[in-house]
Amino acid sequence: MAKMEVGILGATGIVGQRYVSLLADHPWFEVRVVSASQASVGKKYREAAKWFIEPPMPEDIGELVVTPPDPQLFKREGVELVFSALPSEVAKQVEEDFAAAGFAVASDASAHRYDPDVPILIPEVNPSHLQIIEYQRRNRGWSGFIVTGSNCTTIGLVMTLKPLLDAFGIKRVLVATMQALSGAGYFGVPSMAILDNIIPYIKKEEEKVSSEPQKILGRFENGKILPANVPIGASCHRVNVLDGHTEAVFVELGRKASPEEVAKVFKEFQPEPQQLKLPTAPQPPIIVREEPDRPQPRFDRYAGEPPRAKGMAVVVGRIREEPVFETGIKYMLLSHNTIRGAAGNSVLTAELLKAKGWL
Amino acid sequence: MAKMEVGILGATGIVGQRYVSLLADHPWFEVRVVSASQASVGKKYREAAKWFIEPPMPEDIGELVVTPPDPQLFKREGVELVFSALPSEVAKQVEEDFAAAGFAVASDASAHRYDPDVPILIPEVNPSHLQIIEYQRRNRGWSGFIVTGSNCTTIGLVMTLKPLLDAFGIKRVLVATMQALSGAGYFGVPSMAILDNIIPYIKKEEEKVSSEPQKILGRFENGKILPANVPIGASCHRVNVLDGHTEAVFVELGRKASPEEVAKVFKEFQPEPQQLKLPTAPQPPIIVREEPDRPQPRFDRYAGEPPRAKGMAVVVGRIREEPVFETGIKYMLLSHNTIRGAAGNSVLTAELLKAKGWL
Amino acid sequence: MAKMEVGILGATGIVGQRYVSLLADHPWFEVRVVSASQASVGKKYREAAKWFIEPPMPEDIGELVVTPPDPQLFKREGVELVFSALPSEVAKQVEEDFAAAGFAVASDASAHRYDPDVPILIPEVNPSHLQIIEYQRRNRGWSGFIVTGSNCTTIGLVMTLKPLLDAFGIKRVLVATMQALSGAGYFGVPSMAILDNIIPYIKKEEEKVSSEPQKILGRFENGKILPANVPIGASCHRVNVLDGHTEAVFVELGRKASPEEVAKVFKEFQPEPQQLKLPTAPQPPIIVREEPDRPQPRFDRYAGEPPRAKGMAVVVGRIREEPVFETGIKYMLLSHNTIRGAAGNSVLTAELLKAKGWL
Amino acid sequence: MAKMEVGILGATGIVGQRYVSLLADHPWFEVRVVSASQASVGKKYREAAKWFIEPPMPEDIGELVVTPPDPQLFKREGVELVFSALPSEVAKQVEEDFAAAGFAVASDASAHRYDPDVPILIPEVNPSHLQIIEYQRRNRGWSGFIVTGSNCTTIGLVMTLKPLLDAFGIKRVLVATMQALSGAGYFGVPSMAILDNIIPYIKKEEEKVSSEPQKILGRFENGKILPANVPIGASCHRVNVLDGHTEAVFVELGRKASPEEVAKVFKEFQPEPQQLKLPTAPQPPIIVREEPDRPQPRFDRYAGEPPRAKGMAVVVGRIREEPVFETGIKYMLLSHNTIRGAAGNSVLTAELLKAKGWL
Repeated sequence: MAKMEVGILGATGIVGQRYVSLLADHPWFEVRVVSASQASVGKKYREAAKWFIEPPMPEDIGELVVTPPDPQLFKREGVELVFSALPSEVAKQVEEDFAAAGFAVASDASAHRYDPDVPILIPEVNPSHLQIIEYQRRNRGWSGFIVTGSNCTTIGLVMTLKPLLDAFGIKRVLVATMQALSGAGYFGVPSMAILDNIIPYIKKEEEKVSSEPQKILGRFENGKILPANVPIGASCHRVNVLDGHTEAVFVELGRKASPEEVAKVFKEFQPEPQQLKLPTAPQPPIIVREEPDRPQPRFDRYAGEPPRAKGMAVVVGRIREEPVFETGIKYMLLSHNTIRGAAGNSVLTAELLKAKGWL
Repeated sequence: MAKMEVGILGATGIVGQRYVSLLADHPWFEVRVVSASQASVGKKYREAAKWFIEPPMPEDIGELVVTPPDPQLFKREGVELVFSALPSEVAKQVEEDFAAAGFAVASDASAHRYDPDVPILIPEVNPSHLQIIEYQRRNRGWSGFIVTGSNCTTIGLVMTLKPLLDAFGIKRVLVATMQALSGAGYFGVPSMAILDNIIPYIKKEEEKVSSEPQKILGRFENGKILPANVPIGASCHRVNVLDGHTEAVFVELGRKASPEEVAKVFKEFQPEPQQLKLPTAPQPPIIVREEPDRPQPRFDRYAGEPPRAKGMAVVVGRIREEPVFETGIKYMLLSHNTIRGAAGNSVLTAELLKAKGWL
Repeated sequence: MAKMEVGILGATGIVGQRYVSLLADHPWFEVRVVSASQASVGKKYREAAKWFIEPPMPEDIGELVVTPPDPQLFKREGVELVFSALPSEVAKQVEEDFAAAGFAVASDASAHRYDPDVPILIPEVNPSHLQIIEYQRRNRGWSGFIVTGSNCTTIGLVMTLKPLLDAFGIKRVLVATMQALSGAGYFGVPSMAILDNIIPYIKKEEEKVSSEPQKILGRFENGKILPANVPIGASCHRVNVLDGHTEAVFVELGRKASPEEVAKVFKEFQPEPQQLKLPTAPQPPIIVREEPDRPQPRFDRYAGEPPRAKGMAVVVGRIREEPVFETGIKYMLLSHNTIRGAAGNSVLTAELLKAKGWL
Repeated sequence: MAKMEVGILGATGIVGQRYVSLLADHPWFEVRVVSASQASVGKKYREAAKWFIEPPMPEDIGELVVTPPDPQLFKREGVELVFSALPSEVAKQVEEDFAAAGFAVASDASAHRYDPDVPILIPEVNPSHLQIIEYQRRNRGWSGFIVTGSNCTTIGLVMTLKPLLDAFGIKRVLVATMQALSGAGYFGVPSMAILDNIIPYIKKEEEKVSSEPQKILGRFENGKILPANVPIGASCHRVNVLDGHTEAVFVELGRKASPEEVAKVFKEFQPEPQQLKLPTAPQPPIIVREEPDRPQPRFDRYAGEPPRAKGMAVVVGRIREEPVFETGIKYMLLSHNTIRGAAGNSVLTAELLKAKGWL
């Protein structure tokens, strides 16, 4: 099978670099075009991108010349699918231009997340929402389409809520997060702001964590996504950790379940991407640790098998009863915010799109 | 008024050092004896204690010779009151020996916290519990007595729950903590364990945070403390911060209250230590910050006026509705774990004991 | 004595905030005008400045309205002396405008440091260089004048080289620095760049450390500063520390001296600001620590007595022989980069100007 | 070729874990016995070792049962070669017992480093020193022998001094280090000691850095190692970095050389392990970076090709003139202290022993 040519929008930032890294040697996709803002255009990628992440820059992608985000340039290179790590203020128009020009757009930006005809896709949670693409195309008159991923904090959370919801029902959720620096972008948090400190506030994050899961966990029916009703309250905080969002989750279940039953449900979670053995699908998608003091970001953020799925698993630990609710449980979770929570999730979405015939 | 001579048990550790620092130039108390474990006995305090904290060691206390924890030696120096920062396994017997020998013991150790006739005292919250001392003496046949302080995480939390309970009632509380390194003692957390990391587990901490407030918020009646019933669920985590425990608190109130009403109740909290103008009582005891991103440990942990009360105030911020409960609110709080949460709380307790005639 | 009215140029940045903090309740000076860039003009200082440093913002300066850097506005308020924490690209013209308009300008910017008729002043090292002001005025036709301070890394180093040079002579110096984050400004070092890392490069820093001491240690003669010849080689590195530059210094002395002799020379250093008992002059200016593991930035950066001189002393430790040179010694030094190394040095310079009749 | 069975002494500590990790799937060696202190004996390695390092524990080694350091037990398993990561106070006797019992011992402990008949081996620098083994055996009457590696800071330094010495000669060296936490062992540096701090002292480190290179760079002649005479002065400091020692090196060369000539000499360094293509030999052994701000520990500590040699290369950058000497140069270097500086160096030594017929 010939590989599909793909492009990356916003390729020089921290999520853009994760795309570059995750798509190197991808069995189905080949990066052909990298685009970025005006200052980088015309330079080789290796010169345009100050490389921030630990895996070294793939040699061949380093040689690509950065282009502007112009659909015609992408077309000329045979690209059909683009991954977008654009800043939200730019993403709205550019992503629409690409979709109108016939591209499949898999985006991490929030610009289109809340459009009723655009899915927020977590491949393990709501693969059926891809069906809305058909309606999106019809509404907008596009030959291409846009699929988005969720906020980075939301993805890990919803990955664990989904099997609980299916097995026990959920009355309400409270979550307190300890989020990594990379979630704010490379220049987002000055070192003087966070050394020996916590910043107990991330703009609009709590709102996203409360609202996005309603759409993701919703039901697709007659061309519409009907929102779920799983009340979620969040308190979001930045801590001095490079990568990996840690979350303390309290859940009032629909019915009583022991920590062992909850662990079993997590361990047996085998959704469609795993069944399809998609290349970037972690197996298992949820890893349950038994030690009293795990997950820890430095040790667990790159969890996920096979090697291509490193950083794609959600690691859960400390599952215990929460007696303030009759049917309460609590647990810790960790997921890599720029892999599972951003670029990796979109790559997996693209694999699902391909496996299901949307590409 | 001549100052009262006091002693410190466990004077070389991190809480012991806070006692030394807080009692320097105290208007009512004078440190006359410092005791520590065998390895330090006979040395000058300045040589025995590797000084860990930022305010410099008081010159005169540095000159004291470290003694063993023997009541007779303390008596000979005219000491009547001892502050205990002993490790819990040692504290049980030593504190009892001192109480039997006629000393007032103000302790941060957990050894006696759960004895029914020993109060867990937060001077702003349950000053009336001092009355149990009378029963304790009678039960034990002691001329002295023991008063304990709560776990460091609990003190900040209960300081804020008390005015909420009085004003609105409380149905349940969930709290996620981000606790400072000093809570584990100077050698407690290896740097390799916490750099670029979080440890999502502190042994027995969640149990203490759930149970101790029941006694503290309980009612003293007929020589007994009748526990309160304020269900509290906790998830406790260690982060890479020197001092200051940060807590994200979710409360289901007894009746609906707006964030503004909650802020008002916090601001108007004026319990007995403040009314008595005790030297170490912070005024106000709860500081409400209006900025979206406060409290932060590096900037707020030493909050508290007058200067003697630095680190004694609890700083609250981000008071907002929590719609997962009909009567829900949430807020952040910060308190200095070795001052407000340990040594400072005991010093304030001792001041209260003196002001009320127990010394 | 009525206080002299002073102004601050670039008052909202990290050095500007140090000026505000150091000048609060100053016995000789009173801050009357604070100026900053266009975005802040017209706001109260408390709203314009995101306050970065630990001592709280002085209430009264918080109420001042930020003005543009216009000499006429400063004049109208009776200001005669301005402290400049301007970025170098702005400093050149603005500082000249103020000097031309009759103001004394004490600047931390590098813009005028290398002008032959502008002194780089460290009050303990080269107070006699103030005499060049006369020539500067004549050359430029100014009624006011400009005095600069040295680069923050240089100040601590030269403070220790001066007494060595006088006592023993110096053949050559090598210094390796471990510099604090605040030296790059609040937004200068992203947290993602420095967590679990070192950045072994600070632009133009090594050049400054090599060249500025030649001027500072030079001789004033016939209206000129004749450069010294003390070869200094530097390797400059950024580490994850908030404040306080640490330097490892190797010196080939002019003649053999033991560590004890070197310590004695440091301890007996009593230059003019100390003899004049200037309010911000630390006494002693060089503190020698005997412990094997000091100075350490977290514990020693605020060294300096009296309280007004906190952060103004240079702390030296680990003085030992360096046998690679016949007359070699080596030692560690620490100085607070935004106090001793910037704002505090300029305040002390202003005090010297006043004491010597230049103001 | 059947693999040689090997054992690890002190297998549970941080260097022991690096041995376990580096020897997993080694083409020539197979770990058959892991030994540790009494507390661990009888447990499975996976339970005895709290795993500190990022690569996951090899499954099969995790299943081995920890034994005491008894040569007979090792013999019974067919082991001929042991790697020692023992604490120095234990190493002396135990390593001698193994050598006497016929084992080849490759040790990171300092216990035998300074014995005149024991080599301190850096395979790239002094492979010829292996010849002393013959004399060692004769002196001691051993059938086995002991080979040691150098102090972790020294290895990186000497790797770069060797080619300079050969090409240009060296008059003197000054080095200031910024050393990682792991050099002190997992529990060595409390987090409270190093957060927002530097510890400018590492016990006996400067002495080792000055003296060990004399032996390593010495000449083997008539059964003796004649020490070199390369005066080295060091100032050693601990910084808040997990792994990777960074060193700022100033060298007075024997003759003038430009930075380009120095870079060329580093790049062309091709000693025996590289020529023999030993499995753990990094190719090239010295990597020269051209960027102004490299090497950096977080990005460069795992440098080294092929994959088995990750962390074995020494990364050099910022080569520049140092004008305080007529023939001066300076540069930065970085090497992984527990791989290149300890376990990896010994594994490479063992490979050299095998390739040269000593095993």
